[in-house]
Amino acid sequence: MRLVIIGGSDAGIAGALRARELDPSCDVTVVLDDAYPNFSICGIPYYLSGEVVDWSKLAHRTLEELSSYGIAIRMNTRALAIDRSRHQLLCRTPDGGSQEISWDRLIIATGATPVIPTIEGLSAGLQTDRVFLVHTIADARALMSALSSVQVTRALIIGAGYIGLELAEALTTRGVTVAQFEAREHLLATIDPTLAGQLEAELAIKGVELVTGTRVSSLTANDDVTVTLSRDLSTNTTTTTGDIAIVVAGVQPETDLAVAAGARLGHAGAIWVNRRMETGIDGIFAAGDCVITHHQLLGESYLPLGTTAHKQGRIAGAAAVGKTDEEFRGVVGTQVVKVFDQVVARTGLTELEASTAGFEPFTITTNADDHKRYYPGARTINIRLTGDVSTHRLLGIDMLGPTSAAVHKRIDVAATALQSGTSIEELIDLDLAYTPPLGTPWDALQIAATEWLQLVSQRQESISREVALG
Amino acid sequence: MRLVIIGGSDAGIAGALRARELDPSCDVTVVLDDAYPNFSICGIPYYLSGEVVDWSKLAHRTLEELSSYGIAIRMNTRALAIDRSRHQLLCRTPDGGSQEISWDRLIIATGATPVIPTIEGLSAGLQTDRVFLVHTIADARALMSALSSVQVTRALIIGAGYIGLELAEALTTRGVTVAQFEAREHLLATIDPTLAGQLEAELAIKGVELVTGTRVSSLTANDDVTVTLSRDLSTNTTTTTGDIAIVVAGVQPETDLAVAAGARLGHAGAIWVNRRMETGIDGIFAAGDCVITHHQLLGESYLPLGTTAHKQGRIAGAAAVGKTDEEFRGVVGTQVVKVFDQVVARTGLTELEASTAGFEPFTITTNADDHKRYYPGARTINIRLTGDVSTHRLLGIDMLGPTSAAVHKRIDVAATALQSGTSIEELIDLDLAYTPPLGTPWDALQIAATEWLQLVSQRQESISREVALG
Repeated sequence: MRLVIIGGSDAGIAGALRARELDPSCDVTVVLDDAYPNFSICGIPYYLSGEVVDWSKLAHRTLEELSSYGIAIRMNTRALAIDRSRHQLLCRTPDGGSQEISWDRLIIATGATPVIPTIEGLSAGLQTDRVFLVHTIADARALMSALSSVQVTRALIIGAGYIGLELAEALTTRGVTVAQFEAREHLLATIDPTLAGQLEAELAIKGVELVTGTRVSSLTANDDVTVTLSRDLSTNTTTTTGDIAIVVAGVQPETDLAVAAGARLGHAGAIWVNRRMETGIDGIFAAGDCVITHHQLLGESYLPLGTTAHKQGRIAGAAAVGKTDEEFRGVVGTQVVKVFDQVVARTGLTELEASTAGFEPFTITTNADDHKRYYPGARTINIRLTGDVSTHRLLGIDMLGPTSAAVHKRIDVAATALQSGTSIEELIDLDLAYTPPLGTPWDALQIAATEWLQLVSQRQESISREVALG
Repeated sequence: MRLVIIGGSDAGIAGALRARELDPSCDVTVVLDDAYPNFSICGIPYYLSGEVVDWSKLAHRTLEELSSYGIAIRMNTRALAIDRSRHQLLCRTPDGGSQEISWDRLIIATGATPVIPTIEGLSAGLQTDRVFLVHTIADARALMSALSSVQVTRALIIGAGYIGLELAEALTTRGVTVAQFEAREHLLATIDPTLAGQLEAELAIKGVELVTGTRVSSLTANDDVTVTLSRDLSTNTTTTTGDIAIVVAGVQPETDLAVAAGARLGHAGAIWVNRRMETGIDGIFAAGDCVITHHQLLGESYLPLGTTAHKQGRIAGAAAVGKTDEEFRGVVGTQVVKVFDQVVARTGLTELEASTAGFEPFTITTNADDHKRYYPGARTINIRLTGDVSTHRLLGIDMLGPTSAAVHKRIDVAATALQSGTSIEELIDLDLAYTPPLGTPWDALQIAATEWLQLVSQRQESISREVALG
C-alpha cells in the first residue's frame, strides 16, 4: 500500500508518522514544494529575534530522523494535479521536469497561504527586498537576510494578530523600532477588548508604536517603505516610513489542488472533511490548515493552528492505513501567545460567538492573584469568564498575566473543563493543586467562577424584582 | 438562627462566610482556642524562611474583614463539650471561666493535630525551647523565637513529608544546616519512588542531609538535641546532634469533641460525614481536616488539605443555613509541593492504591520538554502516568520539574481530566495551548499518554503471542 502525502509540515508529517506506526509495511512518501520538511513555523519569530541562532534548529525532526521512521521525503517537488481515476499525482520535480507518483491513499496537507490585504501598491511583486511575508522558513530566511544586510532601524508591521505581535516582540528584541498597524479597533480580534487594551499598553511600554482602528491604504517600496494610513471612514490620511514592511494579515486555506480534484469546500472555503479526515473522495484524506476545523461548541469552523494540524494529521494517517475507529474530537478554540513579559490565552467562545451559536452568554471580567500575596512575587491575572445563564455551562475564558503566572497552563485547565462540558459550579469543585508560592486555596479560575455565580444570581434577583414590580 | 462554628481555620471560616453569604440574617459565631483566626498555616514555612517578614501577613483575612462579613469571632475560647439535646456548647473563656453558647446549627471544624511518633524521650514535654512542632501559628512563632534568640546552626527535622520538605528548604534558606530523617524508604510516600529519588538528589545538592529508611529511636534535649537513628531492623545505631529538633510526622483528625457528642467515625478515625457535611446528628455538621474525605476514585478516604477544607467548609456553611442541594463532589488526590527549585505534584492514585481499589493499573515513567527545545530555557519534566489496562481510564499522574516548567498547573490539567473520567486516548484529544516559548505542539501530558498507549499495545501483543505459543 502506497500512501502519498502532499505537504511536509505538521499535518503531513504527523500523518506519515502515524501511518508508519500503525502499518510498518506501508510505503509512505511525502511531497513538499520547499526544502523544509517538518519545520516549526511557529518558531520563526524566535529565529528572527536572534533567540534561535540557527534556523535549522527549528526543525521538529531532521531528515535523518524522518528517514529512520521509514518516511520518504521528496523535497522541492510541487504537486500539480491529482488524478482521481488513475490514482496518480502529477508533480514538478526539482529539476523542473514533471513526474507522476502513484498512490493508493492520498493525504492533502497543503496548509494555508497568507492573506494579502487590499493595499494599493501591494498586490503585485509582493516579496521584494523591502516587503516581506513571514509564513515559510524560506520567508524567514529572506527576511533575516535583509535584517542582516540592509540597515533596518524601523520596521512597519501590517497586522496585529498572533504572528504580528510575536514579530513586534522579535524585532524590538533585535533593536529595531516597530510601527504596527491594525485595521480592527483592538489587536487580537479573538480576545476580550479589555484584555486586548492591557496588552496594547504592554506594547507601548516596550516601545512598539501600535496604531489600531487604522487601515493601510497604500504602500510604496523603494529605498525604504512608505505606507498611507487612514482611520476608518475618515478621509484624512497620514503617512509613515520604515526600512522594511512585513505583511501579517492572517491566512487562508490552500485548496487549489483539492478543488481541482473535485473536493467539496466547507467553512471559510476550507476543504470539507469528516472527523476521520475523509474528503468524501475515495482514498483521499486531508488535514491541517487547508481543512475545516471541527469545533466542539460551534460545529464546523476554521481555526488553523499547529496543535490541530498535528491531531488531524494523526487521524488522517490512521484512517489512510485503514484504522477507521479514530475520530477527531474537535477543538474548543484554545490559543496562547507570549508578547514580551505578558501571556494572553483563550479557550472557548467569545460572547459574540456564544450568542450567535444560540447560547445565552453572560460574561464577567475580574482578576485574581497567581499565588498567595504574602509570598514574594505574586502577580495579578486578568480573567474574563463566559457562561451560559440558563445551563451554567462554561463557554469561554480569556486570561492575561505575566509569564511567571503560568497563564499558558491555567488556560489548559479551562480548556480541559470546557471539553468535558463542565458547569461553572463544577469548576469550583475541581480538586486543583495548592501551595502558597504557586497558587491560592481557591484557584484564580475558581475565584472567577464564584464571582460569575454571584453576579448571575444578583442579576436573576434583579430581573425577578423588576417583573414583580411590573 | 444561630450558627456556631468550632474552629477558625480554613473549613470553619469558609463555612462562616458561605452561611452569611446565603443567609445574611444568620447569626454566625466562630469559637477558636487560639488568637489566629483564618490564618494560612500552609504559609508557615515561608515565615520561618524569612520570605514572609511579618507573621500577621499569613492571615487570609484580618479580624476587621471577618467582622465586616458579619462573623463574630471568639478567640482564645476552647470548646469543651457539645450538648446535643440542649443545643449548648460549653466553652472555656479567655479568662479561664466557663460559658455555654447556644446553637441552632453547629459546624465542627476542629482540624487535625500532629502525630507524635514513638520516640523514646519525645512523648512528654514535647514542646521545649529545643523541640518543636510546626502546626499552628503559635508553634511557628515559638520556633521563630528560638531561631532568633538561640544560636541555631544545625536543625534536625524528623519526617520528610510535604511540610518537612518545605521546612528543610526554609531553614536552609536561613543559613541553618538541616539533617532530616524519614522512616520510609523515600521522602513523600505519596509519589513515585523514581521521582522521589530525583527530589532527594535536589535536596542533597542544596546541602540537606536527608537520611531515608531510618527511624529515630530516641531523642535527648538539653543544651542541644541528640537523636539516635536505626536503619530498619538493624540493631546498629548512630547518633547525631543539632541545636533544635522539629517533629513533622503527619497529622491525625481531632475528633474528641465530636466523639463525645456521639458522632460516628469513618476512614482513618476521622469524623464521618455525608457529601452535605452532615454528621448524622441533627443540626451538627463537620468539615476540614477532622472529617473523612470523599475521593472520586477511592470512595471514603482521609486526605487533610487546605483546598479540601475550604470546599467542605463552604458546603457545610450552605447546608447549615438550609441550602441542601450542594454536595461535595470529592477530591482526586491532587497535591503539590515546591522544594527549592523543583516542584513535585500528583493527582489520582498511586499504582498500589489503584490495584487495591480494584483497577488494573499500568504505569509508565517518561519525560518531556516544558517548551520547544529550540527556544532558550527548555527544561525536562519527569512524568509518571497510570492508566487502567482494560478501560484505558486515566488513574493517576505524578510530575516533577523545575518551578519554571509550570508543573503546578500541568497537574491541574490532569486533575481536571481525571475528575471527568477521561481516558488516555481523550488526553491526546485535548485542545491545549501551544506557543514555542511555553509549550510543545503535543503537550508533555499528551506525549506521556501516547507512550502509555504504545506500551500497553506492545504489552497486549506480547501477551497474545505468549498465549498463542502456549
